[in-house]
Formats: sequence, C-alpha cells, structure tokens
Amino acid sequence: MFNTERIKAISDGLFAILLTILVLDFSIPIYKEGKLGQAVLSQWPSLFAYTMSFFLISVFWLFHHDLFANIKNATPILNMLNLFVLFCITLINYPTSLIAETMKKGNIQDMKTAIIIYDIVAAIISFSYLILYLYISNHPDLEINTNKKPYIFLDPSISISIYLISILLVQYSVLLGAIFLISGILWHGLAYAHLAKSEK
Amino acid sequence: MFNTERIKAISDGLFAILLTILVLDFSIPIYKEGKLGQAVLSQWPSLFAYTMSFFLISVFWLFHHDLFANIKNATPILNMLNLFVLFCITLINYPTSLIAETMKKGNIQDMKTAIIIYDIVAAIISFSYLILYLYISNHPDLEINTNKKPYIFLDPSISISIYLISILLVQYSVLLGAIFLISGILWHGLAYAHLAKSEK
Amino acid sequence: MFNTERIKAISDGLFAILLTILVLDFSIPIYKEGKLGQAVLSQWPSLFAYTMSFFLISVFWLFHHDLFANIKNATPILNMLNLFVLFCITLINYPTSLIAETMKKGNIQDMKTAIIIYDIVAAIISFSYLILYLYISNHPDLEINTNKKPYIFLDPSISISIYLISILLVQYSVLLGAIFLISGILWHGLAYAHLAKSEK
Amino acid sequence: MFNTERIKAISDGLFAILLTILVLDFSIPIYKEGKLGQAVLSQWPSLFAYTMSFFLISVFWLFHHDLFANIKNATPILNMLNLFVLFCITLINYPTSLIAETMKKGNIQDMKTAIIIYDIVAAIISFSYLILYLYISNHPDLEINTNKKPYIFLDPSISISIYLISILLVQYSVLLGAIFLISGILWHGLAYAHLAKSEK
Repeated sequence: MFNTERIKAISDGLFAILLTILVLDFSIPIYKEGKLGQAVLSQWPSLFAYTMSFFLISVFWLFHHDLFANIKNATPILNMLNLFVLFCITLINYPTSLIAETMKKGNIQDMKTAIIIYDIVAAIISFSYLILYLYISNHPDLEINTNKKPYIFLDPSISISIYLISILLVQYSVLLGAIFLISGILWHGLAYAHLAKSEK
Repeated sequence: MFNTERIKAISDGLFAILLTILVLDFSIPIYKEGKLGQAVLSQWPSLFAYTMSFFLISVFWLFHHDLFANIKNATPILNMLNLFVLFCITLINYPTSLIAETMKKGNIQDMKTAIIIYDIVAAIISFSYLILYLYISNHPDLEINTNKKPYIFLDPSISISIYLISILLVQYSVLLGAIFLISGILWHGLAYAHLAKSEK
Repeated sequence: MFNTERIKAISDGLFAILLTILVLDFSIPIYKEGKLGQAVLSQWPSLFAYTMSFFLISVFWLFHHDLFANIKNATPILNMLNLFVLFCITLINYPTSLIAETMKKGNIQDMKTAIIIYDIVAAIISFSYLILYLYISNHPDLEINTNKKPYIFLDPSISISIYLISILLVQYSVLLGAIFLISGILWHGLAYAHLAKSEK
Repeated sequence: MFNTERIKAISDGLFAILLTILVLDFSIPIYKEGKLGQAVLSQWPSLFAYTMSFFLISVFWLFHHDLFANIKNATPILNMLNLFVLFCITLINYPTSLIAETMKKGNIQDMKTAIIIYDIVAAIISFSYLILYLYISNHPDLEINTNKKPYIFLDPSISISIYLISILLVQYSVLLGAIFLISGILWHGLAYAHLAKSEK
C-alpha cells in the first residue's frame, strides 16, 4: 500500500499540460498584410473547440480531484487504472483539432467524421472513469472516508449513452450530432455540480 | 470542503507550462548561409513579446501565490473559478505570437489588431481574478488567515480600465495604444509590489 | 542528505509531460475534402506507436513510483542518477515518431532502422534503471524501508537482452524484430505485475 | 513570509518541461525511402546539442535543489528573483536549436553566431543565480539552516568568465570558442560535485 501523493502529482501534471497544449492549436493564421483582423475572426472554430475541450477536461479534473480527496491508500492496480484514465484523456487533443479544422473548412462529411471521433474519445474517457469507480467501490481497503455514492456511476454511464446517440444521429444530421455531443459534455458539468452540492 | 493542495498543484503546473511554451515561438529563423547573426537580431520582437508575456504571467502567478497562501479550504466553486482563471491565462499564448509577428512585419493595421487582442485577453484575465477575489472575500468559511484587503480589487479594476483605454487609443495611434498596453502590464507589477510591501 | 520531495516532483513532472507530448504526433492528416475518415483511419500506426510508448513510459513510472516509495533520503548522487534516468526516458519521443512514420510508409529497410533505434533507446532506459538499482541497493543509508529485492535487477537485465535479440533478428526479419521489441515492452509490464504482487 | 512549497513546485514544473521540450527538436529527418538510417545518423548534432543543454539545465536544477533545501521561508522578493532565474533558464531552448542547426549545415560564420548566443544565454543564467545567491546570503531571516558558503559565488562568477572568454576566442577560432563553451558547461558540473562533496 502506498499513499496517493504521486498518483495525484502525475495526474495534476498531465491535466495541466493537456489544458495548456490544447491552446497551441491557436497558431497565427495565414493572412494578407493589413487583414489580420479578418483572419483572426475566421479562427473562431479554434476558440470554440478549445473552450469545449478545456471545459470537458476541467470537469474530468474536478471529478478526479473530489474522488482522490476521499482515498487514503494507493495500490498498484489503482495506479494502473489511473494511468489508463490519463491515457484516454490525452487522446482528446486529436479530435479537438479535427473539430476546429473541419468547422473552418465546412465540409459536411468531414464534420461528421470529426464529431464521431470526438464522441468516441469522450465515451472512452467516460468508460475509463467507470472502471476506476468500479474498482474503488469494491476496495474499501483504500480507506475511502465517505459514504458510497452510487450516483457517481450515473455520470459516465449516461454520458456514454449520449455520445453513442450522437454517433447514430450525426449520420442523418450534423446539427443533431453536434447538439448531442455538446449535451454530453455539458452533462458532465451538470453531474459534477450535483456531486459538489451533495458534498457540502 | 477540501484542502488547497491540488488547486495549487494544477495551477503551478499550468503556469510553469505556459511560461515555458511561450519560448517555443523563438524558432530558428530562416536565414541565408553565413547571415545567421542578422537573422537572429531581426527576431528581437519575439524576445520583446516573450519578455512582456513572461512578466505578465509571472505577476499573475505572484498574486495567485500570495492569495492561496492565505486560504485553508477549497470548495468546488473555488476549484471552478480557479479553472476559469487558468483558462483565461492560457489564452495569452495567442496574442503574444501576434505581437511578435506583426512587429516583425511592421504593418500598422495588423499591429493595431494584435494590440487590441492582447488588450482583450489581458483584460479577461484581470476580470477572472476580480471574480475570484469577489468570491473569496464573500466566503470567510475558506478560513482566510488575513485581514480583508479591499485594495486587491484595485489591481484588476484599474488594469481593465487601462486595457480598455488602450483599445480606444490604438484606433488613432499604435504608439499610444502600445504605451497603454505596456502600462497596464507594468501596473500589475506595481500593484503586486505594493501588496508585497503591505504583507511584510 | 535531503528528503526525496523534489526528486519525485521533477520526475512526476517530466513523466507527465512526456506522456502528454507523445500525443502531439497525432496531428491532423492531410486529406482531400470529404475524405477525412479515410485519412484518419490511415493514421493507425500513430495510435499504435503512441499506445506502445505510453505503456512503456507508464510502466517505468510505476517502477519509479514503487522504488521511491521505499526511499527516505536523497543524496546528490541519487539526484544525478535520477536525472540520467530522466534523460534516457525523454529520448523515447524520437523512435516513437520513427515507428509511426515508417509503418505508414511501409518501406522494410526504414522499418528496420526504426525498430533498431527504438530497441537501443529502450535498452538504454533499462540500463539507466539498472544503475539506479545498483546504487540504491549499495546504500542502506538512504533508509530503504523494505527487504532487498534482488529480482528488481531481473527486469532491466532481461529486457536489455530481449532488445538486443530484437536488434539481431530484425536484420533477417522485420516481423521477428518487431515481435521481440513488443515482447521486451510487455516484459516490463509482467515484471511490474510480479513486483506489485509481492508488495501486497 | 511564506513557505517555499510553491516556489519549488513552479520551479520543478518549469525545469521538467524545459528538459522535455528540448527533445522536441529531434523531429523525423527528411529522408529518401530506404535511407532512414543515414538520415538519422546525420542528426547527431541534435543529440549532441540536446545532451549539452540537458546536462546544463540538470546541473542548474541540482544547484537550485540544494539551495532551496536550506531555505525555510520565502519572501515576495525571493519569489521574484526565482522567476527571473526561471526566465533566463527558458531562453536556453533557442541557442540549443541554433547549435544543432548550424552544426548540421557547417557554415563557420553561423556556428560562431550560435556559440556566441549560447555563451550569452549561459552567462545570463549564471548571472541570475549570482543575484539569487547575493540576496539569500544577505537575508538570514529566510532561516537558512546551513553555514554561509562563500564558494557558491565562485561557480557563477567563474563560469561567466569562461563564457566571456569563449565569446572573445570564437572570433578567431570556432574550435577554441566551442572548447571554452563546453568547458563552461562542464565547470558547473565540477562546481556542483565539489558542493555536493562538502554537504556530505
């Protein structure tokens, strides 16, 4: 048995880096002399995709923060499951670029592809949290100083469903797919707000 | 209620990364064989913009450091507001590149655009600190072990005003806009020096 | 004599950054409008190489974590050996890109080169751990609160052998070389699982 | 007065990031199909420059580590001086690229430029340490739990001299300039070894 110092240190490091490198996608646009303003304005999809992913990763950090605040001991398995969670989270960098790029170019078929890949990655992250929750709820020896909270399973379960619906609907309508993708992301925020309220 | 360990850990991580990746804008210039010296010298706007942003982010870190040295407890809302502050701070990477790029090319209209975007981002960061200060000053349950310091509101309020004046003046004169932008940045430094003096 | 706080802090920072920047190799593919899906699918070697390296670095972090959980004191020599370990680990970024790139292009000779360089770097990392273990096992003044575990030498020794066999075999067959390289990486995972079991 | 937790946290973060992003200069070389091996071998200047800078930054981390192990309290001025040290350290990224690039191209005049810029940055970092040491040795209220060590001033003073000699000599001979630059870097290592010995 170990303490959870380093599991938190490497996680905070990785979350911090991911939140920061997402912004590297904002590079200077190619622009005609004197027309930088218009070129910058046409980059709004990058800002949109960045904000979306920053929000998503932030909420996953909040869940991670609250979860490990209640855990005293770390096992090798917990370390491994946490690394799997971190692996899934780093993947978000790729679909974030795809969303920004395809929104700029505006091709419907490519936007569908970008939304589907974002949905898949977001669902995989949710799934990795689900496995982490399952392991923790079955290991009272980690000295969790809180009541079991069955509803923490609800967040990833419901969000995975929303992402799957988005994948299905985007085949017929980019707009509907996008609405469900954004709903899935906002759902994490709502679920966290609910969790935070109950912790008061 | 949580302790503030991880809020400080993710913030320090993000500040450290941002301070470091700003330097990546200094890439090797395109140069004619034997003329590297001149090519390097012509990159002084990159050094200037980097120094400016490093100074700004450093001062924001100093404020963050002193603020959280006085806070014992973290709430979910404090975590969220802190993430919002971090989000705003990461945006500085983009206008830093714009300033460097437009200073190299020298087009007046594009320099105006770069200064305005830098002003907006710096004002947004100041605004996010203002919200953070407001929340903290209204929550004595965070166990702030210091007297209320009403003047900490002065720094972001005044700097936001300076950035807004810079946006207005840059329409008429790039030089005046730049002077006010730099004044706004230097103002944070002065305000922090004043705060640090009072803490002795 | 120092405590091991900062040796762990800089190591966790470096591991976190390395795990995250590996993902930057996934950049948006060049694609024909409407054909993003196919372009993304053709990037599977990047995902494969990324997963392989993330797994390898993760296991090295797990070993590092368990090792330093048992060490109370740091000496300048321990700090230096740890920095040498970190130096070797950062090198993995380069062969990861080579594996992804050569798998995409499919030239047999270039794939051999990529596998050999990956083998060399992985063997060097294993070797740096071997030196670290040797130093620690000869310095009981570091207050290692555990029994000597001679088998921790087995992991790097055996994996170095596997990587050397891979270098020899890849000359005759890319497939055999690749199988041994992947076996070497998986071996670290098995060795860690064995170590973790014994720590229970 | 503050504790030194966060000064160490942001420094370790920044050192870790800098050590890691230096490796990003190793990108896949442009190569003819089947000739990756030769292309990789021709990148040895990148490995050389990376190793040199990793060594330099590592030694500066070791000095930083030992210095702050002896300091109990942080003042705003100490925080600011430390940020100035970090600013100077981040600059090393740029001349590292210049050294690698000019060694690959082999133009004598450009190699001189690269060596001079590396000398200047290394001297500036040494100078920033000198200022930090001066401040600390004049502030016993930081509760330094060690005897004054006047010789810690020797490391930056002597290395600055070596870098200045390198700048002078490189005008006449690239080889002599390079030898003095490398001597300056190795000198830090020797000075640290001496310091570490005395701390036993």
